[in-house]
Amino acid sequence: MVSAPSVSSSITVRLQVQARPTAVSELTTAIEHAGGIVTALDVTTSGHERIGVDMTCATRGEEHAEQIVEALRVLEGVVVERVSDRTFLLHLGGKLSIESKVPIRNRDDLSMVYTPGVARVCEAIAARPEDARNLTIKRNTIAVVTDGSAVLGLGNIGPLAALPVMEGKAALFKRFADIDAFPIALDTTDVDEIVATVCAIAPVFAGINLEDISAPRCFEVEQRLRERLDIPVFHDDQHGTAIVALAALTNALKVVGKEIGTVRIVMSGAGAAGTAVLKLLLAAGARDVVVCDIEGVVHTDRPGLDASLRWTAENTNPRGATGTLREALVGAEVFIGLSAPDLLTGDDIATMGSDAIVFAMANPRPEVDADDAAQHAAIVGTGRSDFANQINNVLAFPGVFRGLLDAQSHQVSSRLLLAAAQALAEVVTEDELNPTYIIPSVFNPEVTTRVAAAVEAAARADQGETGAG
Amino acid sequence: MVSAPSVSSSITVRLQVQARPTAVSELTTAIEHAGGIVTALDVTTSGHERIGVDMTCATRGEEHAEQIVEALRVLEGVVVERVSDRTFLLHLGGKLSIESKVPIRNRDDLSMVYTPGVARVCEAIAARPEDARNLTIKRNTIAVVTDGSAVLGLGNIGPLAALPVMEGKAALFKRFADIDAFPIALDTTDVDEIVATVCAIAPVFAGINLEDISAPRCFEVEQRLRERLDIPVFHDDQHGTAIVALAALTNALKVVGKEIGTVRIVMSGAGAAGTAVLKLLLAAGARDVVVCDIEGVVHTDRPGLDASLRWTAENTNPRGATGTLREALVGAEVFIGLSAPDLLTGDDIATMGSDAIVFAMANPRPEVDADDAAQHAAIVGTGRSDFANQINNVLAFPGVFRGLLDAQSHQVSSRLLLAAAQALAEVVTEDELNPTYIIPSVFNPEVTTRVAAAVEAAARADQGETGAG
Repeated sequence: MVSAPSVSSSITVRLQVQARPTAVSELTTAIEHAGGIVTALDVTTSGHERIGVDMTCATRGEEHAEQIVEALRVLEGVVVERVSDRTFLLHLGGKLSIESKVPIRNRDDLSMVYTPGVARVCEAIAARPEDARNLTIKRNTIAVVTDGSAVLGLGNIGPLAALPVMEGKAALFKRFADIDAFPIALDTTDVDEIVATVCAIAPVFAGINLEDISAPRCFEVEQRLRERLDIPVFHDDQHGTAIVALAALTNALKVVGKEIGTVRIVMSGAGAAGTAVLKLLLAAGARDVVVCDIEGVVHTDRPGLDASLRWTAENTNPRGATGTLREALVGAEVFIGLSAPDLLTGDDIATMGSDAIVFAMANPRPEVDADDAAQHAAIVGTGRSDFANQINNVLAFPGVFRGLLDAQSHQVSSRLLLAAAQALAEVVTEDELNPTYIIPSVFNPEVTTRVAAAVEAAARADQGETGAG
Repeated sequence: MVSAPSVSSSITVRLQVQARPTAVSELTTAIEHAGGIVTALDVTTSGHERIGVDMTCATRGEEHAEQIVEALRVLEGVVVERVSDRTFLLHLGGKLSIESKVPIRNRDDLSMVYTPGVARVCEAIAARPEDARNLTIKRNTIAVVTDGSAVLGLGNIGPLAALPVMEGKAALFKRFADIDAFPIALDTTDVDEIVATVCAIAPVFAGINLEDISAPRCFEVEQRLRERLDIPVFHDDQHGTAIVALAALTNALKVVGKEIGTVRIVMSGAGAAGTAVLKLLLAAGARDVVVCDIEGVVHTDRPGLDASLRWTAENTNPRGATGTLREALVGAEVFIGLSAPDLLTGDDIATMGSDAIVFAMANPRPEVDADDAAQHAAIVGTGRSDFANQINNVLAFPGVFRGLLDAQSHQVSSRLLLAAAQALAEVVTEDELNPTYIIPSVFNPEVTTRVAAAVEAAARADQGETGAG
């Protein structure tokens, strides 16, 4: 699977070329010969002898972009004036703004938005703290919190470098669920300090989305925040992934006519995401799950298991498998990878049972080449946008938080996660369902609406039981 | 000074009235007789026998509003359907929203705003942290931080109840200086925890505006944050007030033809604002300042002085005054109050020297009735919007932070505060200057522009000296 040129690595090249009939076609040909894909062309200036052209093209990355620019530079009569990176241009000044929803045109406006009028609103909240959800931004505002320790596949790059991801996430929250999300990038990786900080800033927020915090600290951070805060805390890398994976599996099993309670599942990866997916699969009724990590199958006799792996060993592997991932895979009907690139080959997938389902979600390079897997499996999904069945958290987190906020929820439960997964699966109708379409597009407006409704109902049911809310 | 009806206490009353020629005039007359001011009237429904009317009027407060509604209710043929409070209506759902500045229309957009494209931006910042100011919202984003311990005149009402003020402040930052400000209301009043929390969340911010934190903790919080952070920290209650007070005094002295270095100044109030005003007056060249607190004149022989009062005693009062505020005021040429309501009468102001300047800034009720003071003083200013010469922090903080952000400043210096005060004073031209117009309107667009330019220049000069930035 050689990566195709991607718009996410687009460049815009500003050129001066001689004004002759073939001037533009020479440029597009050169870009195409160099492997780029032209996505836009603008003639910006024109004269008798020379014209100015902005060529935008998708590339495979920075090295490839340089090759393309060089291919243009060597053309006769062409002068490369400037090369811009579209993704960097888009990020200039950041991706979010904070706007006033109220007009401030004159002293009267000022007297209501600020002093003296605001004092009465403050007094009302002091008398009835629950009114903060009506009279402040708390109602619709969440924090996207990271410590920058496990950002995408980039590792511990720190809070500043993590900001573009957190801003992007906040932009997605707005776009898909009309939620006001603010990025909080913490200048500490200490669990105590993270917990203390998030608790201290919690009043303005109605929910906390934890993001890109490395395991195992992420488990403790989430657990302790849930104990201390009266607003829902959701680690998207864990639970968002789990919801979308379960939704995809639910529909994939429909396609091949199998049941979650009897199907043989092998997982690769016992980190934050893998463990969360495992727990949600078990909650959904999966019975025969074998989990593998870098040392192979997790089983109760394996030495050196930490608390999390011990739990996994005791709650999975009913047939007592041991050995390697490759060995465990023989005869399995579902593979779910949340681990590392290129662990398996097409030949390994060929050893699986009939109508195999393969979700190879390591990013950006999956556990097995998707094209190779598709030679032997009935259904293949990855985390990539350039392949069918992208298992993408964007399908879950906007609707989950929309539902949590609408229910004024105080917590996140397994029932709520299961409801979200079921609602997401059901967005794909029986008529639409097929091996290359087991989950809907993130741009399908039904996705957020239905996930939100299911989560809101589940949250209200939870509150009814606990007497909260 | 009986308070006039204020738009900040407006109500809208929805009524059904009999459809007769005098129907509406009876309503407006009733409101006016009850002391309200009609500001809007809408006929919302109309039939043969009855019409629906929304009457909006300014009141003197909740009790007065009830009297007005009762005056309407007793009118023949009038049914009061609903009473809404305009200020509360405006606050529903809060006053801020967080918006995405980038379009997310399709997968290509998604691939640049979020993964995979965003990874290259993260890597760029990891390699060059200073690029965060170009590629993230940091460039233009500040935190408005409070612990809810000294909110307006309401005291320690806690973080939730403080939110409307912090949101209002953020809205003003946007309106007047195009700054993205986010409210952080802390669920702690412990100095160590406040400092640790603000430091932990600092990466996304280019400045910290401290707000409504009670003295003396506010001094330590500000000092420790300034030591630990590489972004400017500005406690508006102190320095915003000081800038505007100095600007007002500068112009007031021009009007009466006196010099700051020789004029006799008496201050009432040695809290956060009072101390900051004092220090800026001294930095601006004031020599003869007598400070009073609730126990009278602060002087070196007074027992029980804490560290802050000790500093004040040692740096003021060159003539060795003792006794009460009232006694100190005799013969003084300037009174600056940042303390408590109704400490003085017009007769006390009459004991001051000729062409007296009185800034009675206690809010909402000043140290001396403004009308009474005006009988004896040449120039009177207050913190109120319904009297001439409102000494309002909104004149300072937007421009100050605009300048700090534009300079990518790391700190706040006395030079910078003096420059802001001078720039603000100079917005009022010689032609405009008179005893009732010593400071400009907050809606004068020159205010932010000129304060920002002066602060940016001062910040760059500071950076040049320290080698920072």
